[in-house]
Amino acid sequence: MEIHNINVSSYPNSKKKFIDGKLYPIRVAMREISLYPTVRIENGRRVEYPNAPVTVYDTSGPYTDPDISIDFNKGLPRTREAWISQRNDTVTLDDITSEYGRKRRDMCQLDAIRFPTFHKPRIAQDGKRVTQMHYAKKGIITPEMEYVAIRENLDNQSKGIESYITPEFVRDEIAAGRAIIAANINHPEAEPMIIGKAFSVKINTNIGNSALSSGIEEEVAKAVWSCYWGGDTIMDLSTGDNIHETREWIIRNCPVPMGTVPIYQALEKVNGNVAELTWEIYRDTLIEQCEQGVDYFTIHAGVLRKHADLVSDRLTGCVSRGGSIMTQWCVIHNEESFLYTHFDEICEILNKYDVAVSLGDGMRPGSIHDANDKAQFLELDVLGELTEIAWRHDVQVIIEGPGHVPMNKIKANMEKQETVCHEAPFYTLGPLTTDIAPGYDHITSAIGAAIISNLGTAMICYVTPKEHLSLPDLNDVREGVIAYKIAAHAADLAKGFPGANVRDDALSKARYDFRWKDQFNLSLDPEKAKRYYLEARRDAPDADDRFCTMCGPNFCAMRISQNIADKCKE
Amino acid sequence: MEIHNINVSSYPNSKKKFIDGKLYPIRVAMREISLYPTVRIENGRRVEYPNAPVTVYDTSGPYTDPDISIDFNKGLPRTREAWISQRNDTVTLDDITSEYGRKRRDMCQLDAIRFPTFHKPRIAQDGKRVTQMHYAKKGIITPEMEYVAIRENLDNQSKGIESYITPEFVRDEIAAGRAIIAANINHPEAEPMIIGKAFSVKINTNIGNSALSSGIEEEVAKAVWSCYWGGDTIMDLSTGDNIHETREWIIRNCPVPMGTVPIYQALEKVNGNVAELTWEIYRDTLIEQCEQGVDYFTIHAGVLRKHADLVSDRLTGCVSRGGSIMTQWCVIHNEESFLYTHFDEICEILNKYDVAVSLGDGMRPGSIHDANDKAQFLELDVLGELTEIAWRHDVQVIIEGPGHVPMNKIKANMEKQETVCHEAPFYTLGPLTTDIAPGYDHITSAIGAAIISNLGTAMICYVTPKEHLSLPDLNDVREGVIAYKIAAHAADLAKGFPGANVRDDALSKARYDFRWKDQFNLSLDPEKAKRYYLEARRDAPDADDRFCTMCGPNFCAMRISQNIADKCKE
Repeated sequence: MEIHNINVSSYPNSKKKFIDGKLYPIRVAMREISLYPTVRIENGRRVEYPNAPVTVYDTSGPYTDPDISIDFNKGLPRTREAWISQRNDTVTLDDITSEYGRKRRDMCQLDAIRFPTFHKPRIAQDGKRVTQMHYAKKGIITPEMEYVAIRENLDNQSKGIESYITPEFVRDEIAAGRAIIAANINHPEAEPMIIGKAFSVKINTNIGNSALSSGIEEEVAKAVWSCYWGGDTIMDLSTGDNIHETREWIIRNCPVPMGTVPIYQALEKVNGNVAELTWEIYRDTLIEQCEQGVDYFTIHAGVLRKHADLVSDRLTGCVSRGGSIMTQWCVIHNEESFLYTHFDEICEILNKYDVAVSLGDGMRPGSIHDANDKAQFLELDVLGELTEIAWRHDVQVIIEGPGHVPMNKIKANMEKQETVCHEAPFYTLGPLTTDIAPGYDHITSAIGAAIISNLGTAMICYVTPKEHLSLPDLNDVREGVIAYKIAAHAADLAKGFPGANVRDDALSKARYDFRWKDQFNLSLDPEKAKRYYLEARRDAPDADDRFCTMCGPNFCAMRISQNIADKCKE
Repeated sequence: MEIHNINVSSYPNSKKKFIDGKLYPIRVAMREISLYPTVRIENGRRVEYPNAPVTVYDTSGPYTDPDISIDFNKGLPRTREAWISQRNDTVTLDDITSEYGRKRRDMCQLDAIRFPTFHKPRIAQDGKRVTQMHYAKKGIITPEMEYVAIRENLDNQSKGIESYITPEFVRDEIAAGRAIIAANINHPEAEPMIIGKAFSVKINTNIGNSALSSGIEEEVAKAVWSCYWGGDTIMDLSTGDNIHETREWIIRNCPVPMGTVPIYQALEKVNGNVAELTWEIYRDTLIEQCEQGVDYFTIHAGVLRKHADLVSDRLTGCVSRGGSIMTQWCVIHNEESFLYTHFDEICEILNKYDVAVSLGDGMRPGSIHDANDKAQFLELDVLGELTEIAWRHDVQVIIEGPGHVPMNKIKANMEKQETVCHEAPFYTLGPLTTDIAPGYDHITSAIGAAIISNLGTAMICYVTPKEHLSLPDLNDVREGVIAYKIAAHAADLAKGFPGANVRDDALSKARYDFRWKDQFNLSLDPEKAKRYYLEARRDAPDADDRFCTMCGPNFCAMRISQNIADKCKE
C-alpha cells in the first residue's frame, strides 16, 4: 500500500520478528532492521565485520507483515478474540445495545458505506468485571500482560541487557493503577500495548476531520499512516454525519488502541446544541462506542459548574473542546455536570467492556500566561477524586495534562499530578513551552513533551505544525509523529529505559562507518534522511561516499578521525 | 530586498523603534509590532479596545530601516567608528599587516570581486588593550555597554517591568568574564549585543559553503537572511579559494557579530595538507581576519596531543572539524598543538582588536554513547586553564560545548563548565538528545538547547534539518533559526527574563480575540503562520473568521469560551 508515495507495507531492510510467549501461546511482533557489515581496509585487504541486526518497537501491526493479506473489507485478524473468550467471563450479544446504533443499523441508505461484517458485540457476564485491572488485582497474569512484557523488552534478553519488566511486574503496575493496557474486548484486532511510567514512553496521534471525509478508505489510510510512523494509539476526533460507520471501519482495521471523546458525537446527535445534551444521550453514545471497540474515552468529568467563574481570570479562557462544551452546559442549566454526577454509572458501563477512561483536562491552560493556575489545579484535584472512584470499579485510568506550560512550571505539573492522582499514568498534550511560534508548535511542544516524559509522563499526545492554524494533513501527521517519537525516545534514553540506547548506538556506528543506508534505515524517517542526502549528492552520485556535502571530503571530521585512528594503529 | 519570495526589508505591521542612550549619544534599534484593536459586541454595539504595540528584539539591523538605503557595494553605516576613535587608544594603519592579505590585495585578477572600498585597519596603540573586558575591569562603561543594556530591556521600563539590567550591571558582568560583547574595532557596522547567562539567550547560525559559491551577493544574502529570521551572530564557515574577499563583503554588510574558525582558512592555505600547517601561517591568518573585522574566533586550543588516544574508546571518534585537524597535526608531528603552546601570543594579538575567543570543543561527543566521556571533560579542564590565560590578557572568552548528550547528562555539562571555566559564557551546539532522527536534528537538538539554556547556557548554535546529511540551503537555515529562537525564548521564559512573556501574552490574547493578523505578525515566522491558515481557508475566505479549520466553528473551544463569558456577564 502506498500513501504519499511511501510504501507503508514494509520498512526498508526490515522484517517482522516474532517472540513467543512462555505463559501463553502468543507471538509478539517486532521489527528487525538488518545492517550491512563494517568494511575496513587492513594491510591493504578489504575486511568485513558483520553488524548485528537491531530490533525496534513496531506499531505497524499486520500492515508490514508479508504473511497477512490486508483486506479493508474484512478487517484485521481478531487475534485477541480467543484470549478473551477463553476467560469465560463474557457473552456475545445478538444485537447491539445502543438505541442510536440500532437506528443506524436499520437505515438501509447506509448499507453502501457500512463495514460489511457484523461482529456480535461482547460484554461481561452479569455481575462480572472484565478489565485488565480487575484481573491484575486478583493476581492473574493475562495474555495481554505477557504480550506487553515481551514487547517492551524487545530482544534485550538475547543481547544480555537486563530489564525489570516481567509479566508479574506488568500485572503489579496495572493492579496499582500505575499502568494501563487499553484493550476493549470488542477490539480484538489491536496488539496489546502498555502505558505507564515504568515503560517506554508512548505517543498518541489525533486523526479525524472537522467535516466528514468523503472516502472511508481515506480515514483508514490515515490510521495506517499514523501506525506506520510510530503512533502508539490513535484518537479519532471526527465529527460529522457518518462517524458511527466511519469509526467501525477504522476500528476493524486498526492495530493499535483507539480513543475517542464521546461528548463530540453526543453533541452531533443534538445538532450542536449544547443545551440539549442529556445524560441519556451521552450514556447511549458510550454504549454504542463500547460495543464498537473504542479502547479509551476522554471524559471531561472534572469540569464542574464552579470552574466557569475561574476561567474569567484567564488570558485564553477554556481551550479544551470538551471542557468548554461541559462548562457551557453547566452555565446554561445551572446544574452540575452530568459527567461528574453520573461518574459511577459511567464506570459500571466501562468495566463491562474494559474501556479505559482518560480523564480530560477541560481546564488545561491555553497560554503561557494561564499555566498552573487555579482553574487547572482545582480540576486536577477533582480528577484525583475521580481516579479513586474509577479504580473502585476496576476501571483503568489515565490523566490528561496540559497544554501550554513554560519549562520552569513543568515539574510542578508532574508532581501535583502524581500526588493527587495517586500515580495514575499522565498523558499530556505537549506541553508547549512558548506561545510565539504558530507553524512550529510541534517543536515548541516536543521540548515540553521530552521534559515531562523524562519526569514520568507515560504518554504524550502529539501536536502538529498546523496546531492553532488549521486541520493537519497527512504530511503534518508525519511531522508531528516524528517530533513526538523524538521526544519520547529522548526521554527513554534519559530515564535509562532498558535497551533504549541500542538504536542510537547502532545508528551512530553506521554514521561513523559511512554506512549511509544503515543510517537511513535505522532512523525514524528513513525516506526523508535518504532524500536529503541524495538530493545534495545528485552531482556526484558515484563519488567516494565517505563524506557528505555539509563539510565536504577535506573537512569531514569523522573521515579525519578514522585516518588518525589508522595512523595511531600503525 | 526579496529572498525566497520573502521581503526581508520589513516585518509585517512593524516599524523600527529607537531608544536613546543617557550616557552616550546612541540610538538603540528595536522592532515595534503594531496591533489591531480588540473588538467586542457590547449591548449590540461594536466596541474597540486598543492593544498596545509590542516591542521585540531586532537582529535585522539597517536592513529593515526605511531611513537607510542599502547598497552592498558601500556596506552598512559604520556607526561604531566614532565611538572607537573617541576612545583615543587606537591608530589606523596605512596598510594591512597580514602578508597573505597584502598578497591578495596585489592580485589584480581579484579586482573584479574585491569589495570596492578599502577601510584602513585599526589597531590598539602600542602597549594598549582595547577590549570591552579591559575597559570593564577599569570601571569604564563604554557606549557598547550602554547599548546592550538598553537593547536587553526593550521598552520594559515604559511598561513598568522591572529589570536588573543597567549599564553598570553589564560592565560588571563583562569585567567578571560572565558576559562578552563581541565587537572587533574593525567591524564598526555591527550593532553591539551581549552574550551572558544574565541576558537573553542568543543563537548563532552557521553559513558558508563547503565549495566556493559563485556569487558574492548570494553569500551576503545568506547573512541577511539569517539576521532577518533572528540570528544573533553568524559564523562564516566557508572554505574555498576566495574566502578572503568573500568575508570582506559579508563583514562590511553584516549588522551582527561574525565569527570564524581560522584554522579552516589556514588549512586552505596549505592546500588541505594538515602536515604543512604552521604557527606562522596560522598567526598571519589571525591578523588577516582581525583586521577585516571578524568578531570572534573559534580556537581549538584545548585539543592536546594526549587526547588522540582517548578518542579510540569512542563510538564516533572526533567529530569536530577543527579538533580532528589539530589532533591529526599533533599525531603527525608528535608535538604539542601550536594553538596551545602559542596561546599567550594569540591573546596578545586578539586584545589589540578586541576579538573574542570562542574556545572550541574539539572533543565534543558526536553520539549519545560518547557523551560526558573522559576525552570531553579533560578537554574542558584545559579550556578552563585557557580561560584564565585569556582573561589575564583581557581577552573576552566564551566556551563551546556539545554536541550529542542525552537529557539526563545535560546538567552535568553545564555544572562542570561553570565550575572549571569560572562562569565564562557557555556556547553549545544543541545538544542533540538522541541520534536516531537524521532529517530532524533541528528538533532533537532544540530540546537539548532549550534545557541547557534554561540551566545557564548563554548562546546556542543552531542545527538545521540537514545536519549529518548535507549542506543546508536557505530554507534549512530558516527552519534551524526558528527552532533555535523557540529554544532560546522558551529558556528566557523559564528563567523569568524580564519582559520575556510580553510577546507570548500578546500573541495569546490575539489568538483568543481571533485577531489572526496579529497572531501572525507576533509570531516568529509570520509568513508561514499566515500561509498555513490561509491555505486551509481557501474554500471559505469570506466566512466568519472566528474559528480555524482544525476544530471548525462548532467545536472551537475559544469561541465557546467567549460565549460562556458573555453569558456569565449577562
